[in-house]
Amino acid sequence: MTVKDSPNFALEIPPGDDKQRRVCQRCDFIDYQNPKIVAGAVVLKDDKILLCKRAIEPRKGFWTLPAGFMELGESVEEAAMREAQEEALADIEIDRLLAVYSVPRIGQVQVMFRAHLKGDFGVGPESEEVKLVEWKDIPWSELSFPTVVWALTHYAETRNQAAFAPFANPPGTDELTR
Amino acid sequence: MTVKDSPNFALEIPPGDDKQRRVCQRCDFIDYQNPKIVAGAVVLKDDKILLCKRAIEPRKGFWTLPAGFMELGESVEEAAMREAQEEALADIEIDRLLAVYSVPRIGQVQVMFRAHLKGDFGVGPESEEVKLVEWKDIPWSELSFPTVVWALTHYAETRNQAAFAPFANPPGTDELTR
Repeated sequence: MTVKDSPNFALEIPPGDDKQRRVCQRCDFIDYQNPKIVAGAVVLKDDKILLCKRAIEPRKGFWTLPAGFMELGESVEEAAMREAQEEALADIEIDRLLAVYSVPRIGQVQVMFRAHLKGDFGVGPESEEVKLVEWKDIPWSELSFPTVVWALTHYAETRNQAAFAPFANPPGTDELTR
Repeated sequence: MTVKDSPNFALEIPPGDDKQRRVCQRCDFIDYQNPKIVAGAVVLKDDKILLCKRAIEPRKGFWTLPAGFMELGESVEEAAMREAQEEALADIEIDRLLAVYSVPRIGQVQVMFRAHLKGDFGVGPESEEVKLVEWKDIPWSELSFPTVVWALTHYAETRNQAAFAPFANPPGTDELTR
């Protein structure tokens, strides 16, 4: 759909730098690539959890939490709220930070909040289906990404806590992220 | 030193997108710009705090915490450890997540940890001077950025706590970040 790449890039170490960057051979533009932030939330209502079935790749047809790439001009909390609106037509209130996960293999940091749903929800354009599920009904084998499993598991550990230290990647999961 | 920009970009909304992006008029490359992650730490040794005097712009000559842009291929914890090594020749151990600050005006999310210094430290190439200071000796009027003030203040609130909920932007500070 969109052209992210260009045939004019070559890998070079720019002057004053110590890492290879993609440099356009026609205009000297340097494509600095840094990790991107994904903001999302475990959204609760009456102890049920909001899940979205992905209508888009990657992992189309699998269940996920409302989450997506943070855009310029917003805070990380606002990004999580916007994604819930876009994917589940859901107006959410952020409760607190649940976890910060790093996924170096794909250059992502995922910032996940605990939040609650205000009012109703619906099916946004990037979702095939959206539903509130009880803990016992979570489709564990049909979740889209390891970080979704982690966020749900970590949420469960905080269920009755008003304040808690946030989580990071679980120990022993390097083979999933590196 | 490096050419980040190109004369060939124009602002356009790419097909399938809903935001203006910089699109190269010669090769259709789309320069997606997302917020960048700064990783840093309040580094402690015997209740003293490691501060670095900046040798580079912006805010050259002001005091800061070791922190900098996260690179591809590392976790956010590794980025904070690398920055402490680069700016203060300091080998640090991450204790826990202290805060996640958003600075939309400059497109940054700053992830700050509480950490402790293992062994010695020195003056890295991006610093003019590095020192361990007691709380009463922090040069509050010569700190480089509002987020440095916030991280130090938030650290003080957690000083005797093994676990704590992390902090976000303090209330009423929107005029500093928007």
